[in-house]
Amino acid sequence: TKSPRKGIEPETFRNAATTMIDYVIKYHKEIGNRQAFPDVEPGFMRDLLPSDAPKAGESWEDVYSDIERVVMRGMTHWNAPGFFAYFPTASSFPGLLADILCGGATCIGFSWVASPSCTEMETVMMDWLAKALDLPQCFIHGGHGPGGGVIQGTASESTLITLIAARSKVIRRELSRDPNLSMYDVLSRMVVYTSNCSHSSVEKAGLLAMIEVRKLDAGREGIVTGKTLQEAIDEDKKNNKIPTFVCATLGTTSCCSYDNVDEIGRICEIEDIWLHIDAAYAGAALICPEFRHIANGIQRATSFNFNPHKWLMVNFDCSALCSYLSNSANVDALYLEHETQQTTIDYRHWQIPLGRRYRSLKVWFVLRMVGIDGLQSHIRRGVAEAKYFESLVRKDERFEIVFPVTLGLVCLKLKRLGLNLEENVINEELNRKIQDDRRIHLVPSTVHGIYFLRVATGSVNCSRQALDNCWDVIREMA
Amino acid sequence: TKSPRKGIEPETFRNAATTMIDYVIKYHKEIGNRQAFPDVEPGFMRDLLPSDAPKAGESWEDVYSDIERVVMRGMTHWNAPGFFAYFPTASSFPGLLADILCGGATCIGFSWVASPSCTEMETVMMDWLAKALDLPQCFIHGGHGPGGGVIQGTASESTLITLIAARSKVIRRELSRDPNLSMYDVLSRMVVYTSNCSHSSVEKAGLLAMIEVRKLDAGREGIVTGKTLQEAIDEDKKNNKIPTFVCATLGTTSCCSYDNVDEIGRICEIEDIWLHIDAAYAGAALICPEFRHIANGIQRATSFNFNPHKWLMVNFDCSALCSYLSNSANVDALYLEHETQQTTIDYRHWQIPLGRRYRSLKVWFVLRMVGIDGLQSHIRRGVAEAKYFESLVRKDERFEIVFPVTLGLVCLKLKRLGLNLEENVINEELNRKIQDDRRIHLVPSTVHGIYFLRVATGSVNCSRQALDNCWDVIREMA
Repeated sequence: TKSPRKGIEPETFRNAATTMIDYVIKYHKEIGNRQAFPDVEPGFMRDLLPSDAPKAGESWEDVYSDIERVVMRGMTHWNAPGFFAYFPTASSFPGLLADILCGGATCIGFSWVASPSCTEMETVMMDWLAKALDLPQCFIHGGHGPGGGVIQGTASESTLITLIAARSKVIRRELSRDPNLSMYDVLSRMVVYTSNCSHSSVEKAGLLAMIEVRKLDAGREGIVTGKTLQEAIDEDKKNNKIPTFVCATLGTTSCCSYDNVDEIGRICEIEDIWLHIDAAYAGAALICPEFRHIANGIQRATSFNFNPHKWLMVNFDCSALCSYLSNSANVDALYLEHETQQTTIDYRHWQIPLGRRYRSLKVWFVLRMVGIDGLQSHIRRGVAEAKYFESLVRKDERFEIVFPVTLGLVCLKLKRLGLNLEENVINEELNRKIQDDRRIHLVPSTVHGIYFLRVATGSVNCSRQALDNCWDVIREMA
Repeated sequence: TKSPRKGIEPETFRNAATTMIDYVIKYHKEIGNRQAFPDVEPGFMRDLLPSDAPKAGESWEDVYSDIERVVMRGMTHWNAPGFFAYFPTASSFPGLLADILCGGATCIGFSWVASPSCTEMETVMMDWLAKALDLPQCFIHGGHGPGGGVIQGTASESTLITLIAARSKVIRRELSRDPNLSMYDVLSRMVVYTSNCSHSSVEKAGLLAMIEVRKLDAGREGIVTGKTLQEAIDEDKKNNKIPTFVCATLGTTSCCSYDNVDEIGRICEIEDIWLHIDAAYAGAALICPEFRHIANGIQRATSFNFNPHKWLMVNFDCSALCSYLSNSANVDALYLEHETQQTTIDYRHWQIPLGRRYRSLKVWFVLRMVGIDGLQSHIRRGVAEAKYFESLVRKDERFEIVFPVTLGLVCLKLKRLGLNLEENVINEELNRKIQDDRRIHLVPSTVHGIYFLRVATGSVNCSRQALDNCWDVIREMA
């Protein structure tokens, strides 16, 4: 037929898919030849594409030949060996295999009935993950109590949905204490606490939920302590505010520092505050026993989030949220009702969107085909790379390491030495030169007024050679 | 190596991917043998899987052989010929091809710099879509003014993000008029208007944004008129409320009715209210000139959303939001800054999450390989199927068609005839029998107190034969 229902004929698809798979394999194999950040100006793509969609369908060959010309022309190659900018994003072959199945079988698993398989695989996979990371029982579906996990798209959504759950809880609590209050009075008095080193998504969650976010001073080390939190709470309570939610970070984006979750957790228990832990990056490292100490006190948390799509080989998007969450966003409509509603999980109530992909397939494929052993090796390799890079930096007296290298992030800066310039100005200039040079791609950061460069290791195509090259470029620019 | 960085060796991936592609082709080819809704009980999967992830990686063959045993065991097959429950979800081969590239190239395009290609393809593809649907210029990036489109995951997110944008706008407006107001005072007086037939996600958006949702009576026809809206607004303004946002629906989930957008839009212009149009399902039909009348008045809308992942062959998730939206959720952090920030779009400000997939690839592949002609045929085929099914129903005097069949949804019910039972009771019983029978999968609905069955046509494996079978089952159960 001229326009088959699936867009193209199965045989055309089979051939095209084989070509596409080969392209992906070749892309990774030869990625060493690609510049991490592209030489394009804003608006570049409009000149490369027609202004309208074609009337008649084009051939696969036409589309395929445009992948390099159009798509790759302006790609930031997150997997290029010269890419050290953001924490690495997962890119594994088992994850890709699962996504082919997920796309091919196409179910939208918003409720148990909409796809029992999709919902149940997710509950079991969240338990597999929680057990692999040795998380407390309270976060496991198969454990005791109401807790369990859910796959969100991103850590931002996990922060927002837990904040909204905390908001509901506090509104109910305050209205039960004083029924004359309006929920808007309560809302206007709520406060969220987080580090001034925490991710921008915490501030965004506060904006979206209309709750004041108080940023706590994390000091030179980028760590929020119990003392800092307690002082803020005491001050706010005196001012008739309602401490509602703490978002502590394990592995900050800026410098991979760890808030003191044990101290913070004790305070949250006493003050009846929801403690959410954002371990988007570092959480994956808990799969190795030797790194579990970074999550000391986690049993005091109300919810815990980490991103398998960062460092656990499950391709984006897959953000794992473990909590006591349930029904915080419950809205029913008849056309979604079903008889088993009471005894099953309907994950649509655990998230912002209604529709959801069968993302747990990726977790299943990766955990099975790579195994706990393989994932541990993957983490350890990324950490070893960071240690190696740290050793390179320490050999050069012009540079210093700014934060302890605990996982896969090295923060460094040029010392002022004899120069008649502010240290920050020197490092900003160094960063500018590196950006202009284009051989490597970094993103700088600032903690406690100190500007520094960040080198994130552990991406799928990282290697000692890539790190040597990176170091050569930094020294040359310095 | 024992644990290669991408999980498995490239050659293993190549072979496994070929197998997976063949599986997907076979799945669709033989889907006629599959029951739309599975015979499983809640908790079925826990018995089929180990309680923990394996220590050592397993072979591809082991994982592959579990796809039927575990995954398909409890799948609701949205593409099975017996599935008429929800509006169909797209499942096209070009969409799948694009997802292989998206997964394989793995970039996270939260800002222009994070992947210029990802951002720019999205702006051009949103323009292609808007032009293909003949949407007003104000929704086009390449048009005049600040408008343009963005791909969201779901229509729920589109509703929420536009509501939040409207909330910010109204707070700014009210505080500029009276600086003594608190934003919580303003918030407490805001009202959202929507039909009592609109999707549950509108009510959920109101809950999440903490804004009262007033459901307007859509009457027997499921249509909100200007008169109904104006009366509600007048009453609310008398009570010192602030009408903030109207979510009108084109193609309701219940009965595929269309709010009177032209009348509603005129009122929103006069009253300075954000008008969002949820055309999640029906919007795709605008690609055919003969259906554009359903969106009469759309030029008065502030934002417009439709889901290419429903009826435009772009696999889930891909929800297209066109609006004047910008920076409603803007939060900056140094590590996301870049020099071109002022001249480029950073889509993270247009959505709830930070991270985002390269979803526009799917739109590009589908529009190019299927073409406007092919997509028009796809829509017309779904409509013809509904018309055909309507003709079957109309031949049987025991049944009646409850709502006009305009696109791909047929709403029907058994007449009471001489029976000594409430009509709703009869139809609820009919629905129960159909559910128990399992040959077809339907989801009922209720409008204005009338309970009815819904048959949604247009899925990739729908056909006249599938519709004949569906009708046979309904008649047999009746």
